[in-house]
Order: sequence, then structure tokens, then C-alpha cells
Amino acid sequence: MGEPRIDRRRIRTRAALLRAGQTLFAERSVDGVSIDDIVAAADVAKGSFYNHFPDKDALARTLADQARLGAEALAARVGIGIEDPAERVARAVCGFARQALENPESARLGQRLFHSAAIPDAPMNAGVRADIQAGLAAGRFGGVSLEAAVLLAVGVVQMAVSRVVEQGSPAHAAALAQDLAFGLLRALGVETPAARTVATRAATDLFNGPPL
Amino acid sequence: MGEPRIDRRRIRTRAALLRAGQTLFAERSVDGVSIDDIVAAADVAKGSFYNHFPDKDALARTLADQARLGAEALAARVGIGIEDPAERVARAVCGFARQALENPESARLGQRLFHSAAIPDAPMNAGVRADIQAGLAAGRFGGVSLEAAVLLAVGVVQMAVSRVVEQGSPAHAAALAQDLAFGLLRALGVETPAARTVATRAATDLFNGPPL
Repeated sequence: MGEPRIDRRRIRTRAALLRAGQTLFAERSVDGVSIDDIVAAADVAKGSFYNHFPDKDALARTLADQARLGAEALAARVGIGIEDPAERVARAVCGFARQALENPESARLGQRLFHSAAIPDAPMNAGVRADIQAGLAAGRFGGVSLEAAVLLAVGVVQMAVSRVVEQGSPAHAAALAQDLAFGLLRALGVETPAARTVATRAATDLFNGPPL
Repeated sequence: MGEPRIDRRRIRTRAALLRAGQTLFAERSVDGVSIDDIVAAADVAKGSFYNHFPDKDALARTLADQARLGAEALAARVGIGIEDPAERVARAVCGFARQALENPESARLGQRLFHSAAIPDAPMNAGVRADIQAGLAAGRFGGVSLEAAVLLAVGVVQMAVSRVVEQGSPAHAAALAQDLAFGLLRALGVETPAARTVATRAATDLFNGPPL
């Protein structure tokens, strides 16, 4: 009877530490947060911290891994059943903007903890890279190198997230995501009328309906 | 005779503190650098720090202001005598990429210290905003809102700088800047052939010749 209770407490403590880290690292750099800050916010004894993480950086890495997996899962989720690479890319832009609207704290955490976003062949960019490669191969995109195309997409997503976190009204976020997705599609070589149709549909789909 | 010597020493000390701050803040967050680190790197007594700056954040703010002014001056310099908004925007992208190639440390410092880049009407975006406004008014750009257009331009510049700092070969930087400028122009509504011509000329101009 003893062990399950200890297990539940361990799980609760770990979850409280992760939540506290998420909140604090969203506000300040990792260097600006102490273990004392984290255990105070989590309301656990300092010694408990070390039962779960060897140091603060290990907690930050765990949160960064969670955020990255969450971003990959989101990109995959919004692309389920969608074949057209242009539509997949536009839906990813709108999906990240919608998520930043619903959960600005985890968006801020991602902005702080993702350092490899500008590396086109980083694992976290594998999804968008595959979509762009497919679009270039199929002639849906053209005129631009794979490297530049991935960087354009990553830059657009980062700007969408930053601006939505900053500004934050739902109507503004939907209109901005649509505009940015449209701009990205044109950058990738989609003609204006088609880019407009695809971006409008993506924003409509991703902003009407429950949070992602 | 005494005062000038003290003045020269003051100026040298201040410059040494700014240089040390620039190097350290390019590597780590402001929270991750102590005043002890700064005075050690500057090779000055700790008390001297407080003759120049009330605290570490004041030194960081001074460096951020210098970096911002440097960025504004760069954008203005590469646009001297250039009327066409498309050409001005393409030259800015290539100019920042070239500068990141020549001076990765100050590029990293800017990336760390600029927090308002995703705000279209922030003072530091006034130049690009004016160019895009002019381009929209003249019909050189179209189909995209001013806000989205400024964010697209800022996102492209940030990606160019991040990737050049990361990767760093001159030939790669020139080709990437050209590709990204081309993509940005298409995003802003410039037709593919014109976007290609303008981006190629901008990259050729900005990467051949002395550092900016």
C-alpha cells in the first residue's frame, strides 16, 4: 500500500516542478531562474528537486524536448489527410498561430528554448522540410532552394507566433496568420490567386473550431 | 595636465567595459553574466564599473541601443541613392547577411538583445516599414497587409542573420541572402522574373566590395 502512494507523490512533484519551470522559463532566461525559484513556485522541498533532475539545465532540457515534441505533433495533426504541400504549409502556419493564441505561455517557452530553428536540417524542421521537398518535386513550389524555402517557412512561423503572443486578439491572429501564410506561399512560388485560396481556407479551418 | 589623462583613462575604461559586455552578452544571456565576469574580461577594478554604469542592465541597454543604431545606420547606408522600394528591401536583407558574415559577434548580440523585432511599428522597424509603405503605395508591392509585409521582412532578415552566423561561409551567405531576398520580394507581390533580377543585383552589390 505504501509504494503506490509514494509513486503518486513522485508524479505530482515532478509535474509541479515541470509546471513551475514552464512558467518561469517562459518569463525569464534559464540563467535568470534559480532552483530556489523553481521549488518555491512548485511548493516542494528543495531536496525533492534533486530526486527528479540533476540540475536546472536538465529540467530546461526536458521542457524543451516536450515543447519540441508538442510542436512536431501539432504540425502532424494539422496535416492529417492533407495531400497538397501548399495546403500543409499554410495549415502549419495557421496552426502555430492558433496555438500561440490559446497558449501564449508555452509559445513563449518555445521561443526561449528553441535554438536550432534556423538550421534547415535540424530534426525539429523535418516535417516542414519534407513538405517543401514534396512541393518542389511536384512543381507546386519553385524557383527557390530547399534551404531558403525552409528558412522562409520557419521565419514566418516564428513571426506569426511572436506577434500573436504580443498582440493576442483572436480576430487579429486569424487575419495575420492568413496573410503570413499567403505571403509564404507566394515566396515559395505559388501564384497569387491560388495562394489566396489556400491561405484563406487554412485560416478558416484552423481558427474556427476547438483549440488544437 | 591631470584632467585630460583621467579623461582618457575614463574613456578607455568605458570602452573596455562595453567591449567585454558585447563579447559576454553575445555568448550568454544577460542573466548569465555577472559584473565580476565583465570586470574580469575588461581587466578593470570592480569599483570602476559603477563609475560608468549603475548596474549590469544599464550596460546591456547601452549595448542594445548601440546595436539598434548600428542596424538602422546599416539599413540607411545600403539604401542611399536607391529609389525602388523592392531594391531597398533586397539590399537590406543582403546587407544584414553580409554584416553577420563579417561580424558574427555583434550579430549574436543583436539577436539576444532585440526583443521588439516582431512589433511592426517598433522604432527599429521604421525604415523597413517606410520602404514597404512606399512600395505598397506605388503598386510595386501588393496583396499583403502592411503589418504582414513588415513581419515577413523582419522574419527574413532574422533567418538570414541566424543562418549566416551558424553556417558562415562567404559563398553560402551570398547565395542564401540572394535566395531569401528573392523569396521576400515574391511574398510582397513582385513577379518572379523581376524579383530574381532585383535580388541578384542586390546580392552582387552587397557581397562584392569591402565590408559594410
